[in-house]
Amino acid sequence: MSDVGVTVKKSENFSEWYTQVVLKSGLADYAPIKGCMVFREHSYAIWEKIQEIFNKKIKEKGHRNVYFPTFIPESFLKKEAEHFEGFVPECAWVTVGGSRQLEEKLAIRPTSETIIYAMYAKWIRSWRDLPLKLNQWCNIVRWETKATKLFLRTREFLWQEGHTAHATKEEADNEVMEILGMYKDLMENYLAIPVFVGKKTENEKFAGALYTTTLEALMPDGRVLQMGTSHNLGQNFSKVFGIKYIGQDEKEHYVWQTSWGISTRLIGAITMVHGDDKGLVLPPKIAPTQVVIIPIFYKEVEKSAILEKTREIFEKLRNNGISVVLDDRKEYTPGWKFNDWELKGIPLRIEIGPRDLKAKQVTLARRDTFERVAVKEDEVVDTVKSLLEKIQRNLFQKAKRFLEENTTTVKNYDEFREVLKRKGGFIRACWCSSSRCEEKIKEETGATIRFIPFEKEEVFSNCVYCGGEAKEVVYFAKAY
Amino acid sequence: MSDVGVTVKKSENFSEWYTQVVLKSGLADYAPIKGCMVFREHSYAIWEKIQEIFNKKIKEKGHRNVYFPTFIPESFLKKEAEHFEGFVPECAWVTVGGSRQLEEKLAIRPTSETIIYAMYAKWIRSWRDLPLKLNQWCNIVRWETKATKLFLRTREFLWQEGHTAHATKEEADNEVMEILGMYKDLMENYLAIPVFVGKKTENEKFAGALYTTTLEALMPDGRVLQMGTSHNLGQNFSKVFGIKYIGQDEKEHYVWQTSWGISTRLIGAITMVHGDDKGLVLPPKIAPTQVVIIPIFYKEVEKSAILEKTREIFEKLRNNGISVVLDDRKEYTPGWKFNDWELKGIPLRIEIGPRDLKAKQVTLARRDTFERVAVKEDEVVDTVKSLLEKIQRNLFQKAKRFLEENTTTVKNYDEFREVLKRKGGFIRACWCSSSRCEEKIKEETGATIRFIPFEKEEVFSNCVYCGGEAKEVVYFAKAY
Repeated sequence: MSDVGVTVKKSENFSEWYTQVVLKSGLADYAPIKGCMVFREHSYAIWEKIQEIFNKKIKEKGHRNVYFPTFIPESFLKKEAEHFEGFVPECAWVTVGGSRQLEEKLAIRPTSETIIYAMYAKWIRSWRDLPLKLNQWCNIVRWETKATKLFLRTREFLWQEGHTAHATKEEADNEVMEILGMYKDLMENYLAIPVFVGKKTENEKFAGALYTTTLEALMPDGRVLQMGTSHNLGQNFSKVFGIKYIGQDEKEHYVWQTSWGISTRLIGAITMVHGDDKGLVLPPKIAPTQVVIIPIFYKEVEKSAILEKTREIFEKLRNNGISVVLDDRKEYTPGWKFNDWELKGIPLRIEIGPRDLKAKQVTLARRDTFERVAVKEDEVVDTVKSLLEKIQRNLFQKAKRFLEENTTTVKNYDEFREVLKRKGGFIRACWCSSSRCEEKIKEETGATIRFIPFEKEEVFSNCVYCGGEAKEVVYFAKAY
Repeated sequence: MSDVGVTVKKSENFSEWYTQVVLKSGLADYAPIKGCMVFREHSYAIWEKIQEIFNKKIKEKGHRNVYFPTFIPESFLKKEAEHFEGFVPECAWVTVGGSRQLEEKLAIRPTSETIIYAMYAKWIRSWRDLPLKLNQWCNIVRWETKATKLFLRTREFLWQEGHTAHATKEEADNEVMEILGMYKDLMENYLAIPVFVGKKTENEKFAGALYTTTLEALMPDGRVLQMGTSHNLGQNFSKVFGIKYIGQDEKEHYVWQTSWGISTRLIGAITMVHGDDKGLVLPPKIAPTQVVIIPIFYKEVEKSAILEKTREIFEKLRNNGISVVLDDRKEYTPGWKFNDWELKGIPLRIEIGPRDLKAKQVTLARRDTFERVAVKEDEVVDTVKSLLEKIQRNLFQKAKRFLEENTTTVKNYDEFREVLKRKGGFIRACWCSSSRCEEKIKEETGATIRFIPFEKEEVFSNCVYCGGEAKEVVYFAKAY
């Protein structure tokens, strides 16, 4: 529960604003273990919505959920050299079980490719066993050493990781893109966050992948958040784990694999992108509660009629598939409740007071624009439905405009640095494709190539760093 | 996929039968880490059904899902002395994070009372914050040293753990019983497994609880499985963690707490109780797939008409809320498919062959009784629905009869030993209430007191062990 609202403005101290919104809205709290957090009921309910939406999508396409052990022996991680190098520095290690020292130390999964693929090697025998398309929802541990940022950087978080095996590279390519499409739909049409999609450079790809595709979103402070990734792992893991199948040609082949994931950092993105000085603002399609009804009465004589009316409206909305809460708690005033539900970002508030009752109407208040409108009782369901759609659309369009306004094309390094410093955002620039230029830019400015567009864009200048011949147009940004 | 069916009889080698059913039906597999298992798609889908059913129940009563860290500092576990003693011998310890030795070692949660209650101490201030009713679904690690038994004893498993805080003991008592009732409903009316409920003795209660209530089910080999527990923790944890609230009396009080859990061992129970020599038998209400449709044709000319008919029936059933799979895979024969779906325990099979097509009928085959019946096409939905109900009821009644037949009243220790040796099951006996007798019986026979009935039963003999005056009737058994 919040004792007091958010005390800083989003535009003035973004980082402090974010922390206050997360803590005071009841999304999360710091755990009493360094670098760890607690997912409180409000954020976990959003996570459950995300699970519900995404599970439906992947199950329709034949994916199945499973659960693999949290423990990964060091020797498994070592099998794929790049993978090992990428993940070992941030593993938490179990060295003692019961009262005995373990013979081999076990990592708490930082990602599960290796433990899952050890089983794939056992399960996959024939072309009949392909494609194998499994997914798991689980916790992940990465021993971050930088300061904790709730939802974005903690030593433990929640995610889903999909792992598929296919007969051909083409099938794996298609899977990577199909999942990317599902992620984009989730982010844009449910979370109301517009994303850019594209490929990662060699430097930025997943440790052990053939290539990585990514979804990137712009946060209000001009920094960019990687929202999800979908990797084609090629045959890198199938060769080291021996995942082979007998094809219809009766010969032995290594499988082609993909892996992909989204995590609870999405909840951080929702908070940052849509929130305002009053707190969270949740897109209706992802809000665990879409509508809150608050009875208002000043005299004891009005009470029972008003309470009865709120219950009637509550039932009506619930029976129409709207997720609604009736806040008839006696121990809080209407004003306190207004603030609390605004802080929690509930999209729509319905107030019913003595004047509403008399006029056979209710008062609706939008969380995104604070507009208030009186509606006749018998129109309440239709109006609520249409307002929820409007709020969903409005949030997306606002974020989309911001993304467009903060995607800047530059032709040289001076412009690059100036834009990065002045407003950040995505910087569209030409690049010679050398890792050296990419690394130099990162070193000097902190910006990285977030993605290479899938559809090659026409080169319009020399390389933004070295001035040599440019090979492609890429998008830079400072990332979380 | 199963290459071959179960090769031993349930009645001849129960333990080997169980392992084969679990592995060959695709429920689970051994992981390449000692003592760990993989929850494959078939068992995870059952777990998802259990989650769906139980989430609905607890959310209706105002519980909310959350997620707390997997790490528990040693000092937290130490705060409640009994709790520490109970759990420390089986903790897995993280001692290294990244490349650095940790200052304090962290247990991977064996249960989460301590980490959760450290937060409750921070969140609970006033009577307005009560009751606080949270639940989490997560993985649990207990460093078992005995041999692995899939679903029943592994070093990692999945569960839910509920944790509530209340103003009074009475409210906590009510919560314990309300949850116990939900568990009983889940087990009997969904899993089709009859259970006994009651209280644990002081020796057998949860480490740190005031008292523990339990649900106990009988397995076909005469041993008993603890299916779930619901504890009143009293003020044991609130006093050591300082969880206090200001009451309406404006004074400070310690809260009263409960915790309760069920785990993936329930899937082991379903397998054991209902399975037969052909494999798994799933109760329809918990089966991820309730009906499988298999087209049967011998000549190419029959193929398209039969496939079309199977698709028509498939749509019809799906549109009526039945979870159905159409197995039209070309690479397997109908016979192979029959065996495979029987192994997986799908409650009902629909066969559609040339003769069925001609007679405008389908053939239904029950998994529990193997009865086959031809049904007119336009009666298929109603018949499927009523058969699914019959199967659900039949499985429960069969298990209930077995429970009744294997609950034996004994009057002295000779009878006790004879019954335990001959058939096992629950042994109803009188007890003097001394821990000494309880411990002696355990030492000499391996049987423990599984529960004390809530409604005191009339004493009918002296203490079954010492022959002294008996205080109560209790139920003994050898447990998993």
